[in-house]
Amino acid sequence: LGHIQSRQSRNTDTLFEIDLGLGTQGSASQALYRGLKAAITDGRLTAGAKLPPARKSAAFFGVSRNTTVDVYAKLVYEGLVITRHGSGTYVAEGVTGSPRVSRHDKDIPDPRLCPFWLRPDTKLAMSFCRDRTQASSRPPDASLLDFRPAMVDPRLFPFDLLRKVSADQFRDSENKPASLKSPLGNQGNYHLRSAIRSHISLTRAVACQADDIIVTSGAQQAFDLLARVLVPSNETIVAVEDPGYPPMRVAFAAAGARVVPVSVDDEGLILERLPADVNVICLCPSHQFPLGVSMSMRRRASLVDFARRRGALIVEDDYDGEFRYEGTPLQALRTADAADVVFYVGTFSKCMLPSLRLGFIVAPDWAMQALIAAKNCLDWHSAIPIQNMVAGFIRDGHLKRHVRKMLGIYKRRRQQLLDSIRGELGEWLTPIPSFYGMHVAAVAPSSVDLDRVTEELLQENVKIHSFSRYYLGPQTRQGLIFGYGTVELSEITTGVSRLRKMLRG
Amino acid sequence: LGHIQSRQSRNTDTLFEIDLGLGTQGSASQALYRGLKAAITDGRLTAGAKLPPARKSAAFFGVSRNTTVDVYAKLVYEGLVITRHGSGTYVAEGVTGSPRVSRHDKDIPDPRLCPFWLRPDTKLAMSFCRDRTQASSRPPDASLLDFRPAMVDPRLFPFDLLRKVSADQFRDSENKPASLKSPLGNQGNYHLRSAIRSHISLTRAVACQADDIIVTSGAQQAFDLLARVLVPSNETIVAVEDPGYPPMRVAFAAAGARVVPVSVDDEGLILERLPADVNVICLCPSHQFPLGVSMSMRRRASLVDFARRRGALIVEDDYDGEFRYEGTPLQALRTADAADVVFYVGTFSKCMLPSLRLGFIVAPDWAMQALIAAKNCLDWHSAIPIQNMVAGFIRDGHLKRHVRKMLGIYKRRRQQLLDSIRGELGEWLTPIPSFYGMHVAAVAPSSVDLDRVTEELLQENVKIHSFSRYYLGPQTRQGLIFGYGTVELSEITTGVSRLRKMLRG
Repeated sequence: LGHIQSRQSRNTDTLFEIDLGLGTQGSASQALYRGLKAAITDGRLTAGAKLPPARKSAAFFGVSRNTTVDVYAKLVYEGLVITRHGSGTYVAEGVTGSPRVSRHDKDIPDPRLCPFWLRPDTKLAMSFCRDRTQASSRPPDASLLDFRPAMVDPRLFPFDLLRKVSADQFRDSENKPASLKSPLGNQGNYHLRSAIRSHISLTRAVACQADDIIVTSGAQQAFDLLARVLVPSNETIVAVEDPGYPPMRVAFAAAGARVVPVSVDDEGLILERLPADVNVICLCPSHQFPLGVSMSMRRRASLVDFARRRGALIVEDDYDGEFRYEGTPLQALRTADAADVVFYVGTFSKCMLPSLRLGFIVAPDWAMQALIAAKNCLDWHSAIPIQNMVAGFIRDGHLKRHVRKMLGIYKRRRQQLLDSIRGELGEWLTPIPSFYGMHVAAVAPSSVDLDRVTEELLQENVKIHSFSRYYLGPQTRQGLIFGYGTVELSEITTGVSRLRKMLRG
Repeated sequence: LGHIQSRQSRNTDTLFEIDLGLGTQGSASQALYRGLKAAITDGRLTAGAKLPPARKSAAFFGVSRNTTVDVYAKLVYEGLVITRHGSGTYVAEGVTGSPRVSRHDKDIPDPRLCPFWLRPDTKLAMSFCRDRTQASSRPPDASLLDFRPAMVDPRLFPFDLLRKVSADQFRDSENKPASLKSPLGNQGNYHLRSAIRSHISLTRAVACQADDIIVTSGAQQAFDLLARVLVPSNETIVAVEDPGYPPMRVAFAAAGARVVPVSVDDEGLILERLPADVNVICLCPSHQFPLGVSMSMRRRASLVDFARRRGALIVEDDYDGEFRYEGTPLQALRTADAADVVFYVGTFSKCMLPSLRLGFIVAPDWAMQALIAAKNCLDWHSAIPIQNMVAGFIRDGHLKRHVRKMLGIYKRRRQQLLDSIRGELGEWLTPIPSFYGMHVAAVAPSSVDLDRVTEELLQENVKIHSFSRYYLGPQTRQGLIFGYGTVELSEITTGVSRLRKMLRG
């Protein structure tokens, strides 16, 4: 009974063309049972397939009729096959189970999985991340010019200082192991929250107390945490900037919110386009992602008033506000005055490294208890060695110095980029004025086929994003985003030249 | 116009008994506007409260009628008050907003928050965590004897080795910054996943590939991640052991599942009690939490068969399976045979430190894509320095040596504890046989009032949990849980003596 070649057909009992791969161990009955069961559960025998009649078992399986009857009865008992009177025995629906073979390979979503995660739009929105993390360091091919936004070049990061701070923290832990716990609970290491408080009061003029801060594993966890706390029902309406940051939308959509795109103009989010019954308004007022505009002071005041009047809440994503190049400093939306309605999200992914996964929320005090409760459910608290390390890095002044250094580097790159765009690409592209961050957006007339251009550039080893992937609703403007986190001055010149070549067609 | 005492009434315009706390800055109009607005938004003036008629403004506010009319018009425009013709001006519904004062202090859940997080049962279930993290190191009061389960004593952890491994990793990052990225995407550092693979194949006989593993920020994030992926609808039925681990239940309940408690006997989860239409079955087969029993081999086989037949999935929580004291090694439920239906959750919280927040899931391959997509939404990936550090700690053999050392220490504590319980507490308590872990459970007859005992022990500086907090359904057995993660041999003797005193009454 080693291997049996048998044959199948859906309609007749003539052929049973699968290899049951029957083993030699155990009785013939056991071998047949295991072989059929495996064939059913791994999908080689699909739902509706007819099994050979028991009376033909000798020919098919090389076992007696009685053996086959027993085996079929066992399979019926287990629900794997069904008997239709006068017709025969068939593989049951919904049992072709071990999706190792059947489901994964055929790319049919398994009904036991939440379908949201496998939706094409979810995948597309989160593909931003795959890009980001994969290219958060130099690619193996050093000739690649990577203009994608929100990239950080780890070659410019002072790992030696991080190592020293980290070693100091571990030495503390050796001496007093208590320092490795989170002394005031899961809201985050108190020293880190104090350090964050002074960091954002310096760089972003956000006035708050350490107790207004909850530490998260990066901005993405902050969005997920806010989504899980601020979306009480499937009726909750969350307005997002369009174009905007797709992974933030995914967090709110995953929590069951109705995500509504709202257009952006040169002053930022257009308030008149907000749904009247909006519950949560998500935006990047300092440096809109990806267009780069700053929201006007006038509109900020109206936004906060609007939110208060309607009982709506504001999520302010301040992802790269540390890097400001010109103009008077604009304070964050989350001033002391707006502390009751604004959730301010900050991150160390841009000013330090994305691989640390460290961010935070400055939250209204009335919401902190719920945020801590949800954070407990998500992961209790963020990794303490990382929290201690970043607290030490800030305390010792390393963050301030690193931001100053990077500001100089980014400023030169930005100037070079703006000069090159204006000098060489002025025919096709107009930079959108912006004062912050690590990228510049430039708009193009609709006559230019940017999707062709970016695709052709990829062949020339230049990675650059057009606006299209950042729109949720209909695309109203087209353009390119020039991130300068990982491109050096000479690479900017080269990249822009190649781009000019493509644009000339 | 410094302070104005005015009086209010819901029905008449006679009294307006709140302090508007009007400042002296700005015009009288501005002061009145700000004062009224603040009183409305912070809830001192509640919905439906009538404002004094403008003609009586001088008496009430010390300002002219026209000033009051202007201020009221502004408040009407902002939606804070409404005018009923011929009747007067009233505070609008749903605007007593700034919950800084009104909602938080009064402990009324804000309707803008997901109510789940503030439910008393959620808080109670998660209070386990507050306990755990707060006591994951020695308390300031060294005389405290802490018998709570799942504690780890950081004084026994080799921080010097962790520091060296960590420094090596950072030196690598200085030399090749690329090592600080996650080379194969957000599923987790490949070196860590390989190290986990060999760790669990050694300690738990779990045979899998590195690609079957997704790294999480501790077991709690693993539960949350599984809940978000394996609960496609509010109809999803999740069976949990009763008694069981409350924070795991919270993760599934938060994702919208119907969580159903299922009783446990001496062979583990009672399969006959599983709902016929169960979708996900969560359990700790090696060392049931908190009772400590191991699921029999017979029942394991039936469980896997049951799951396959019904299309149900199994979540195996193997939180402390590294520490086995007697008996033949029981393999994990997640054998190669059960790879299609079992999600195995492991953690470094017990065998290393909870403060690292590092765990993992060994998942069926058909589910991995959805898990990675959800992990991206949760926080992209776990902190890379932690992943690198633990990968190095395992690779260099430190984890193996540390587990061996702790096994010796725990074995002596466990023996001491069992001897003391049998010797001194045999009248009241019978230990439940168990072979794994860091705690022993002991049952007591219902005549003993354990809640009184544990409360009185707290007065004597002994912290110990009774079973009661671990039940979701009706409590069917009572007893105490003796964790020995942080108590030394002499402390066990002292603690048991104090317990004996209390039990004698």
